[in-house]
Amino acid sequence: MSHDYPVPPRSEDRDILGHAVDRLEDRPLVMGRGAYAGDISFPNQLHMRVVRSAYAHGHLRGIDLSAARALPGVVAIWTQADIAALPPIDFRDPSAAVLKPYRQYVLAKDKVRYVGDPVAAVFATDPYVAEDAAEMILADIEPLPPVLDPSAAPSEFSAGHDTEPTVIRHSYGDIDAAFAAADHLVELDLTVGRHSGVPMETRGAIGRYDAARDILELHGAAKVPHRNRDTLVRMLGRPPDSIHLFEGHVGGGFGIRGELYPEDVLVLLAAQRLRRPVKWIEDRREHLMAANHSRNQRHLVRAAVSKDGRLLGLDNEFFHDQGAYVRTHGARVVARTMSMLTGPYLIGAYRSVGHFRLTNKTPAATYRAPGRYEGTFVRERMMDAIAAKLGMDRVELRRRNIIPGEMMPHTIHFDQPGVEELALDSGDYPALFEKGLAAFDWEGRRREVERRRAAGECVGLGVGVFVEESGRGPSDGARITVDTSGRVEVLTGGASVGQGFETVMAQICAEAIGVDYKVIRVIHGQTNRIAHGIGAHAARASVLTGNAVHIASTNLRERALMFASELLQTPADQLSLKGGAVVRLSVPDEPVMTLAELAGKLAPGAPLLAGRSPGLTAEGWFNTDHTVFPYGAHFAQVRVDRETCQVTVEQFLIAYDVGRSLNPRLVRGQLVGACVQGLGGALLEEFTYNDTGDPLAITFADYLMPTASETPPIECLITEEAPSPRNPLGIKGAGEGGINAVGAVIAGAIDDALGMPGTVTQLPVTPQRLHLALARLAERKPDAA
Amino acid sequence: MSHDYPVPPRSEDRDILGHAVDRLEDRPLVMGRGAYAGDISFPNQLHMRVVRSAYAHGHLRGIDLSAARALPGVVAIWTQADIAALPPIDFRDPSAAVLKPYRQYVLAKDKVRYVGDPVAAVFATDPYVAEDAAEMILADIEPLPPVLDPSAAPSEFSAGHDTEPTVIRHSYGDIDAAFAAADHLVELDLTVGRHSGVPMETRGAIGRYDAARDILELHGAAKVPHRNRDTLVRMLGRPPDSIHLFEGHVGGGFGIRGELYPEDVLVLLAAQRLRRPVKWIEDRREHLMAANHSRNQRHLVRAAVSKDGRLLGLDNEFFHDQGAYVRTHGARVVARTMSMLTGPYLIGAYRSVGHFRLTNKTPAATYRAPGRYEGTFVRERMMDAIAAKLGMDRVELRRRNIIPGEMMPHTIHFDQPGVEELALDSGDYPALFEKGLAAFDWEGRRREVERRRAAGECVGLGVGVFVEESGRGPSDGARITVDTSGRVEVLTGGASVGQGFETVMAQICAEAIGVDYKVIRVIHGQTNRIAHGIGAHAARASVLTGNAVHIASTNLRERALMFASELLQTPADQLSLKGGAVVRLSVPDEPVMTLAELAGKLAPGAPLLAGRSPGLTAEGWFNTDHTVFPYGAHFAQVRVDRETCQVTVEQFLIAYDVGRSLNPRLVRGQLVGACVQGLGGALLEEFTYNDTGDPLAITFADYLMPTASETPPIECLITEEAPSPRNPLGIKGAGEGGINAVGAVIAGAIDDALGMPGTVTQLPVTPQRLHLALARLAERKPDAA
Repeated sequence: MSHDYPVPPRSEDRDILGHAVDRLEDRPLVMGRGAYAGDISFPNQLHMRVVRSAYAHGHLRGIDLSAARALPGVVAIWTQADIAALPPIDFRDPSAAVLKPYRQYVLAKDKVRYVGDPVAAVFATDPYVAEDAAEMILADIEPLPPVLDPSAAPSEFSAGHDTEPTVIRHSYGDIDAAFAAADHLVELDLTVGRHSGVPMETRGAIGRYDAARDILELHGAAKVPHRNRDTLVRMLGRPPDSIHLFEGHVGGGFGIRGELYPEDVLVLLAAQRLRRPVKWIEDRREHLMAANHSRNQRHLVRAAVSKDGRLLGLDNEFFHDQGAYVRTHGARVVARTMSMLTGPYLIGAYRSVGHFRLTNKTPAATYRAPGRYEGTFVRERMMDAIAAKLGMDRVELRRRNIIPGEMMPHTIHFDQPGVEELALDSGDYPALFEKGLAAFDWEGRRREVERRRAAGECVGLGVGVFVEESGRGPSDGARITVDTSGRVEVLTGGASVGQGFETVMAQICAEAIGVDYKVIRVIHGQTNRIAHGIGAHAARASVLTGNAVHIASTNLRERALMFASELLQTPADQLSLKGGAVVRLSVPDEPVMTLAELAGKLAPGAPLLAGRSPGLTAEGWFNTDHTVFPYGAHFAQVRVDRETCQVTVEQFLIAYDVGRSLNPRLVRGQLVGACVQGLGGALLEEFTYNDTGDPLAITFADYLMPTASETPPIECLITEEAPSPRNPLGIKGAGEGGINAVGAVIAGAIDDALGMPGTVTQLPVTPQRLHLALARLAERKPDAA
Repeated sequence: MSHDYPVPPRSEDRDILGHAVDRLEDRPLVMGRGAYAGDISFPNQLHMRVVRSAYAHGHLRGIDLSAARALPGVVAIWTQADIAALPPIDFRDPSAAVLKPYRQYVLAKDKVRYVGDPVAAVFATDPYVAEDAAEMILADIEPLPPVLDPSAAPSEFSAGHDTEPTVIRHSYGDIDAAFAAADHLVELDLTVGRHSGVPMETRGAIGRYDAARDILELHGAAKVPHRNRDTLVRMLGRPPDSIHLFEGHVGGGFGIRGELYPEDVLVLLAAQRLRRPVKWIEDRREHLMAANHSRNQRHLVRAAVSKDGRLLGLDNEFFHDQGAYVRTHGARVVARTMSMLTGPYLIGAYRSVGHFRLTNKTPAATYRAPGRYEGTFVRERMMDAIAAKLGMDRVELRRRNIIPGEMMPHTIHFDQPGVEELALDSGDYPALFEKGLAAFDWEGRRREVERRRAAGECVGLGVGVFVEESGRGPSDGARITVDTSGRVEVLTGGASVGQGFETVMAQICAEAIGVDYKVIRVIHGQTNRIAHGIGAHAARASVLTGNAVHIASTNLRERALMFASELLQTPADQLSLKGGAVVRLSVPDEPVMTLAELAGKLAPGAPLLAGRSPGLTAEGWFNTDHTVFPYGAHFAQVRVDRETCQVTVEQFLIAYDVGRSLNPRLVRGQLVGACVQGLGGALLEEFTYNDTGDPLAITFADYLMPTASETPPIECLITEEAPSPRNPLGIKGAGEGGINAVGAVIAGAIDDALGMPGTVTQLPVTPQRLHLALARLAERKPDAA
């Protein structure tokens, strides 16, 4: 199924693809016509409120619903007993059988396992009544001691299962030999804090049962409507064509919005049972304790290094804090952390052991660049530590270890049977690194930083190099239709979480069939319109759906030229499409017949068809069994206030090769937005818990997010030097390149500013944490001296 | 494009097709889960009420809206000035340019032309407020004398246009020579009354504007959603993919429900302008004066007959009462009346002149068997008159003139250039006639009737022979998909008006792919799911969509067997589909692999696909440039009460050849239902007007419809002797065969009962009308003697 495609044209040689055109999505949004989940209502709808556990861990002995039931307007209240036949929420990876006992029931069964665990659902005629009723419900919970440290020894989860369902391993080479041969050994204990994507729009779900057609509709879907449709089909035991998901506007996804959560299942089932639409809109407090968390990992990592600074071996054991249940991704973040951990470097031998651990906190899953933000933090912290240990320049050390351009493509085969190889497809990592250094004026800034330090300022630089992965298959399709007004519908199974999906799909189609991209309407997230769909996750949308749209458009172009050729009695190879019309190549600026006219001649029964199927329409599928690997480097300059321990990012540069850019403005938007999110995880955002497992960050007063004032100047150096040979458009995903190394380079820059390598071992670097570190180091220094 | 297909198997040789299985449609309906227009609501919707002219004809000088505007809850009121840019309602036939000045504006412009003509539309938050406001609106109308007689001399309609926009002619042979050579000349003046289909569910339309996607939705669509979509696209100047129509359950169509009316356009435009959903549900009074009327024609007909009773020539001039405007069908009913008037007989020469006339009554269009109910009444009344004149038995006269089986297929070429030939495709008309006579026991009943007459009763028999036409092309398509649960979706552009569409489409598909028809979900009437669709009119659904489903299913079968053959390493011709599974022909009762399993192996990216498009899905199109001609005969026995002039139908028989029956129970349902409607037009139903053009039948107290008590025993003799060679299933439409000759045979039976041939010249034969006729005849008799 994998092909090596010819090198696609560069943006400058294309009419619209790769150009920075305006977003198609923006018009309804800026005009106040957006249709977010909260905007969707159906007549006679009920409102759902979820009653959540106030205990991190405990036996659920009973629930007193009597007062709530008596409240006028309450139509139904469900506990686990009301949905006893419903299985727990399924996850995608069928191979993760070992994780099955750890799945979350839609309403808690016997035990509660985190603060926020749903124990009951109230359905009322009014959202305020539902909320009042929820507050009257008393869950009788016998508290148990919570498990909060993922790296502590495993304890019991439930009968026969402990809190470590699985340990995952990736390795290659002879790691023991590498360490035996090492001139230097560097060890680190590093932690990435628990944080997550926090979209502007909280979650929302509206279930509706169409009794006339026996169809369940879930409105407010996002990200992966088709996958969730499939999961719901399995869970509810209904045929696939009897459940439809509908995506409206989505106020941010970032991996967490759009996964299948207990509330989605509840509104759907309630709509069917109560025969009324059921609406649920999450409030912010709920969001911060009920939607997926992410990132929390502790890594114990050792490097074997030769005296000239080459990495002979990397040995990494880590503990992944999954929270209370396994959600839809299974153990994907753990696996991805270790498969991508070696990044852009040639490392002689590698071993990674990932402990997948349950704790009594909110369940975790993927957040933008899952496993890579964490892994890059670990790898690049290690590179800084090695440089410090060897007294070598950080940049020089990286130069010595980076995979040379002439070694590409480069494949890492892991020892473990069944573990997918890491087949880096294309790129010149050193070249981009050098370009980034030059663009950031690394040397100039070093001199300037030294000058400012001499003047008493505490400033420093950070650097990190990384590889991203995107475009996992297996397949996606699209159907394109030109109507008799010349408008084009691009029907996809993709999803739009705000990333500009409609615009780039329209650009891809417009490039192929020679129309104004503004006449194109891109359909996504509607499972009743197309049976399959890849959605929008893991930077798949551009690569998979984009190439499917390209292939479908090319098929449409061929069909248009075939019919035009017959109509005009001219060989197809003397015709082309331009400006929404068929033109002769000899006079390309004179439209011979518009596509609208041609579509009109292909109506059902039209003589021109001569038995062929009607309409100016074509389908296309893109299949792939490989992923693609964009790559980049981050550079940051920070200033630390030694008094307040506040860290100010003065400058950030993202150097990134996307293979082929579909729209540089959108790529830049993706990179800058992701970078700001990365800064949140590096400096501000953390879901903290107290000793009894109570979440301490359930408002925006405690969970701090970067705002415009915390956003530094962010420059982007977007290159297109290494188109992927694995898809016709040569593209690689752009969604995660802005966040990948942010934690790593901010940590390095802080160390550099302080002049104390190895200071930062934990993210986020909050003022409090930095203050403690400085105090510890101040204590230690006299000993070290 | 036309083919002669092989003779399809008979029902008894098929597994499910042609068998009397239960209707798929009934379950939601009998469980109270139907979703009719009235059941559809959207949050925040407005309710529309139409203000209608109380005058049949007049100048519209102004409208006083002030009082209505002041009513709380009134959001907007529109008159023509508010929608001045909107063109009148378009009709389909592009060749009918001469009719264009006679189209109806959505709201009356300058003049009102019938009682019920919309002059204003009120939009309010509540339907009762809207109705109250509508009653406060005063239209200042200067009355003009109404035109009520369609056969009077044409008068002015508007500047430059009179009330006869067109005269249509059909002829063949030398009519003058035929009359010159005739032994007998028979002349009649016959009238069919103004009546129409009156569905249980009145019309309803809900407009909704999806501002986020800039899409206009019209809910409550029926019959021809795709055609109406196309008309709205032209009228509103929007791209086709920005208007979607949705059909829910429909409480009867009969040709009149589902056409595009002013109210449909109003709710759609108002939804867009007012940015709120707009709902309109017609009340019964409105329905009877605003929905399409039909049938009203006066025929002056002459026959030239040889002494042995052969029809040498038929000369027919008629006046069609179109009412106040030309609606979506243009002049189709006039054209169809004359093209089908010769029916099953060989007639030496023929001439028909149809006057298409405007009057100040409700506009008219098609009603079940349009033009055929009227034409058969004329032709069969003439046959009775000739028999009376020649003193010949009515049955014998018909035998002499009917087209012999050995002359089939038989084509009539009309003289007029551009007029389509009448190409009767297959059948043995005399054989079916004889079967019908035998089944009705015509001879036995004649003797019995004579016996009862001798005993003083007034009883008689009527007979009529006819040809129907159905299945006009050009083309229809379907897409069939088997999902991973084994459920099958049949996606069509058809429509369901209650005729059992879902059931027969499922049977067709089930027969081809060997599944239980109950696992099939048939989609229809959703323009967002499929770009083209023929809808449900002129008995097209079974023939066009049915054959498309057959072809698509056959394609799906082929695709299933191809993949199964690869999987099982068995030649496809040794495999078959049965019981929802692939079986080996050698052991047909052992499922090897279910279709659900096979569908699961065709997911996107599956290895089995090897680059082919995914899914167990296939499309198919049926193209035709010919219609098909089912045929039949009706027989009735009536009793007349000479005192009250009440006519009781004692027995009815419908003999009908449908080529191949898809489901005999549904065919019978269609025939019996149509027959009862025919009895309504023959005896009860009439839209009457007084001298000032006021409609006198705007409630069910005045517009009398047949109920169960007026329904006689109706027997059906359904035969399948003459499958159409023009489609693979061999089918012919069944929707209109039960109504075609009802008016004719009831008239004949009344004449016979009275012993006075020629008594009935006008339908319906109301007691009052019969009383007058008897009185006139009683007066005339002494003179005649």
